[in-house]
Amino acid sequence: MNIRPVIEYLQGLQVQTCKALEAADGEARFIEDAWQRAEGGGGITCMLRGGQVFEQAGVGFSHVFGEQLPPSASQLRPELAGARFQATGLSTVIHPLNPYVPTVHCNVRFFMASRDGQDPVWWFGGGFDLTPYYGFHEDAVDWHRTARKACDAIDASLYPVFKKNCDEYFFIRHRSEARGIGGLFFDDYNSGEFEQDFRLLKSVGEHFLEAYLPIVERRRDHPFGDRERRFQLYRRGRYVEFNLVYDRGTLFGLQSGGRTESILMSLPPQVHFDYDWHPEPGSPEEALYKEFLPARDWLAS
Amino acid sequence: MNIRPVIEYLQGLQVQTCKALEAADGEARFIEDAWQRAEGGGGITCMLRGGQVFEQAGVGFSHVFGEQLPPSASQLRPELAGARFQATGLSTVIHPLNPYVPTVHCNVRFFMASRDGQDPVWWFGGGFDLTPYYGFHEDAVDWHRTARKACDAIDASLYPVFKKNCDEYFFIRHRSEARGIGGLFFDDYNSGEFEQDFRLLKSVGEHFLEAYLPIVERRRDHPFGDRERRFQLYRRGRYVEFNLVYDRGTLFGLQSGGRTESILMSLPPQVHFDYDWHPEPGSPEEALYKEFLPARDWLAS
Repeated sequence: MNIRPVIEYLQGLQVQTCKALEAADGEARFIEDAWQRAEGGGGITCMLRGGQVFEQAGVGFSHVFGEQLPPSASQLRPELAGARFQATGLSTVIHPLNPYVPTVHCNVRFFMASRDGQDPVWWFGGGFDLTPYYGFHEDAVDWHRTARKACDAIDASLYPVFKKNCDEYFFIRHRSEARGIGGLFFDDYNSGEFEQDFRLLKSVGEHFLEAYLPIVERRRDHPFGDRERRFQLYRRGRYVEFNLVYDRGTLFGLQSGGRTESILMSLPPQVHFDYDWHPEPGSPEEALYKEFLPARDWLAS
Repeated sequence: MNIRPVIEYLQGLQVQTCKALEAADGEARFIEDAWQRAEGGGGITCMLRGGQVFEQAGVGFSHVFGEQLPPSASQLRPELAGARFQATGLSTVIHPLNPYVPTVHCNVRFFMASRDGQDPVWWFGGGFDLTPYYGFHEDAVDWHRTARKACDAIDASLYPVFKKNCDEYFFIRHRSEARGIGGLFFDDYNSGEFEQDFRLLKSVGEHFLEAYLPIVERRRDHPFGDRERRFQLYRRGRYVEFNLVYDRGTLFGLQSGGRTESILMSLPPQVHFDYDWHPEPGSPEEALYKEFLPARDWLAS
């Protein structure tokens, strides 16, 4: 296997993603920052801020390499601790302005690690997950239907596994609460067939906006006021808690000497933390906790 | 040694601290929440919000015990991993409204751990540290002078050690940036004399407001506008980053099944994250980074 075609694919996907998000926003434009990593590699971070639809959208590409695989990347494969590595990935995190439009995250990535005199080890990872503030049954079902479609294009056995992984991974343990309504998550994925696994990555990358943009269109003009905005800012606090306490990508980035501003572009632009806040019984805010966050099979017929 | 007098002292200090902060605010009042921990123990969290001086102030007492010391508490003493333990502490975190008034944190704590058939191991920890948004030389010197006084009451050799510990501990590695201008920090402290070490704890507990409140008085009526408020909200993001990524007290609390709302009362009520923001050259915001955050000896004559 060869990392070069993966890098080229991710760079193309970054350009496409930014174009599609600019078109959906209709107003704001991405700025582009290229950065270098002292130990090897670098990346390009694209940020859009203050849009009419997207309060902030970050689309970050990176390709880093080095002589010492950081611990957060070798948790699942301790035999690789300290091995020579290359990693490339594309991360997108979108924080919309309207609280009826969900926050979304997509990441696709590829790792290669090798020790002298041994065959290189490689794997893919990725997925996408949705974090609504106000839940809509229709959106949740459509989101998961497209997620399943992305997997079924490769192998019909994948969706249930990746869906479960996602529910388990994006879980805020100290709250006993899911970050959102899930989607797909896979890591350390190597079927033995590089070309097929690369197709899986592409399928996930390509179905992401196909899953998200129709939801944006449906909810972007939904009227909202202070109450909904406050709830959105409050719930964004959970996003911060998950990303800084648990997220392996964030920890890998910070530990491996990545560019801090690019790693933390996932954090929402404005956040409230409100001590011991609880939604009113019977409110739409409570419905998020009761009906949407608990893990369930959205495609059960 | 006996944990009971420490618990009684900390509970009294909590009451005193809340009274003094209410008097300083002049308007807002603390609410009090008692909580129980399923595995043993509990606490009392006092929160003041929406004051004229303090946007939020949390004063949290806890006494927890259990059969398995969590890993975050045994990092420095791996031989105690999984031992029976008791821990008690009082934490205060204040986020003022006026950006010219610094954020402040104080913690005092006591741990005991024992394995069957062995003598119990015990230690004290604590300290206080200041996080200004706009730096004032006079405030920094007064703060450290009172910190030194708190230590000198016990032993003149302590301040330089605890000051250095504090600079090292409250350091945001992924930013190569201090959280604030430091103060005191000690952990795993046991001189062999329980009574003397307990006196040190009391001295730190008692000098905290003596160090902080004069600064509040001096800066509370300093006029400010949107620019200063925005900078304060932005800098509060660093507080969030430190507390969720590095703070051992936070991790210990979350890992040991403490009450999440009480542990995370340290997080500021409102926060901005602003991608790749930099202060203007020559501005007072830049002065914070250049003159106040880099570790230095504020008491050098």
